[in-house]
Amino acid sequence: MSGPDSLQADLAYRFGSAALLEQALTHRSHSARHNERLEFLGDSVLNFVVAALLFKRFPRIDEGDLSRLRANLVKQAALAEIAGRLQLSQYLRLGEGELKSGGFRRPSILADAVEAIFGAVFLDGGFDAAQKVIEHQYEPILQNVDPKTLGKDPKTLLQELLQGRKLDLPTYTVLATHGAAHSQTFEVECRVPKLDIQVTAGGASRRAAEQLAAEKAIAAVKALAPARTGRGARPRKSAQLTLPVAVAQEKK
Amino acid sequence: MSGPDSLQADLAYRFGSAALLEQALTHRSHSARHNERLEFLGDSVLNFVVAALLFKRFPRIDEGDLSRLRANLVKQAALAEIAGRLQLSQYLRLGEGELKSGGFRRPSILADAVEAIFGAVFLDGGFDAAQKVIEHQYEPILQNVDPKTLGKDPKTLLQELLQGRKLDLPTYTVLATHGAAHSQTFEVECRVPKLDIQVTAGGASRRAAEQLAAEKAIAAVKALAPARTGRGARPRKSAQLTLPVAVAQEKK
Repeated sequence: MSGPDSLQADLAYRFGSAALLEQALTHRSHSARHNERLEFLGDSVLNFVVAALLFKRFPRIDEGDLSRLRANLVKQAALAEIAGRLQLSQYLRLGEGELKSGGFRRPSILADAVEAIFGAVFLDGGFDAAQKVIEHQYEPILQNVDPKTLGKDPKTLLQELLQGRKLDLPTYTVLATHGAAHSQTFEVECRVPKLDIQVTAGGASRRAAEQLAAEKAIAAVKALAPARTGRGARPRKSAQLTLPVAVAQEKK
Repeated sequence: MSGPDSLQADLAYRFGSAALLEQALTHRSHSARHNERLEFLGDSVLNFVVAALLFKRFPRIDEGDLSRLRANLVKQAALAEIAGRLQLSQYLRLGEGELKSGGFRRPSILADAVEAIFGAVFLDGGFDAAQKVIEHQYEPILQNVDPKTLGKDPKTLLQELLQGRKLDLPTYTVLATHGAAHSQTFEVECRVPKLDIQVTAGGASRRAAEQLAAEKAIAAVKALAPARTGRGARPRKSAQLTLPVAVAQEKK
């Protein structure tokens, strides 16, 4: 079992009960002793540990922002990223059907297994052990968190960016719709007249197209006029405005 | 400060920092050092501790049922009940407006303060202290939890009750609607033909009326034919079918 050994090394945790780790890696398609109850437990210990981390790290932001940050850090895509770093797909135990259809690459299966592992560590080693393992996985992620932008959608970010520069709100216009009712695509234009910015984007819904257009407009604003370094507009912030790209892609 | 003293006795926890307990009891209408961040933290430690409690207490139920049970145990009404037992309303610090409008009786304010107290205990005494305090409050509640029924709505319970007796599903019919568009009431009939049961109920929505009718039908079924004591139909279960009454009232 060299596999789980290197997984335990990456987790910086050695299980007392190898059976618990095995169960955490077992999808319900594989056998009856699967990871779904562990996932329930792991989801809640994860939510709590991340809440406590954020509470301490950002002593001045309000509970609404704390909730937004946490939602973003524990969402499926973030957990699937952790699964990727841990190379979980090579340890997963899947039923034949899931194996053939590439279940070991599915973000939901990977994310659930990460949560199940956290739950298994809690059962195996108690709360302090689970907290350590979770914090270890989140350290590299938290270093890049900008509490002002993480998890905000591009339209909100564009609006805040323009307000910060005392500019009017952008306008969004549907230029065209293509296709039949159930497979329509929308073409949307986003304009920031004061900056002579005019970009278009397409999407499967009006909202999706607007978000993509806003993303392009943010890039255009930043290319035109890099953030001023005056009070309340440190350049570091503007550099981190690239984060929402991932958010927008998930919404498609 | 005899007030907080008796509160600490009821919590079975003595705060190292009196300021933390004070903050947990402070609504945002009162002052800037209010309890909303503590509520965020407390909500997550509560969710986790209750998840772990349920995981251990019910080793055989699946994660869907665990989620349903937890949602029911940490919902506003459950927390407001804990607040009532702790007589929290006499310790709350509210702004003048909230005081005058009876904010100290509002379930949302009471529930938030309970969560904030759990968060404050975690900050003050660490995870083990928070776990003890939460478990102490939930002991009396958990003793009455029936994992098969808690948190299920009356329509689901009626359906399960009839299926358990191999009877056909009930039918629901809207008999009449009264009033103008925005203040309509619905009158719904629920029938269980095989048992000659036919009850009606009114509600502000079709769904609400159906749930109330299902509740009446459950009572009628139980009055007609008490649960058989054969395999898979212990009388204890049927006696606990009164629980969903509280659920239905919340939905109105």
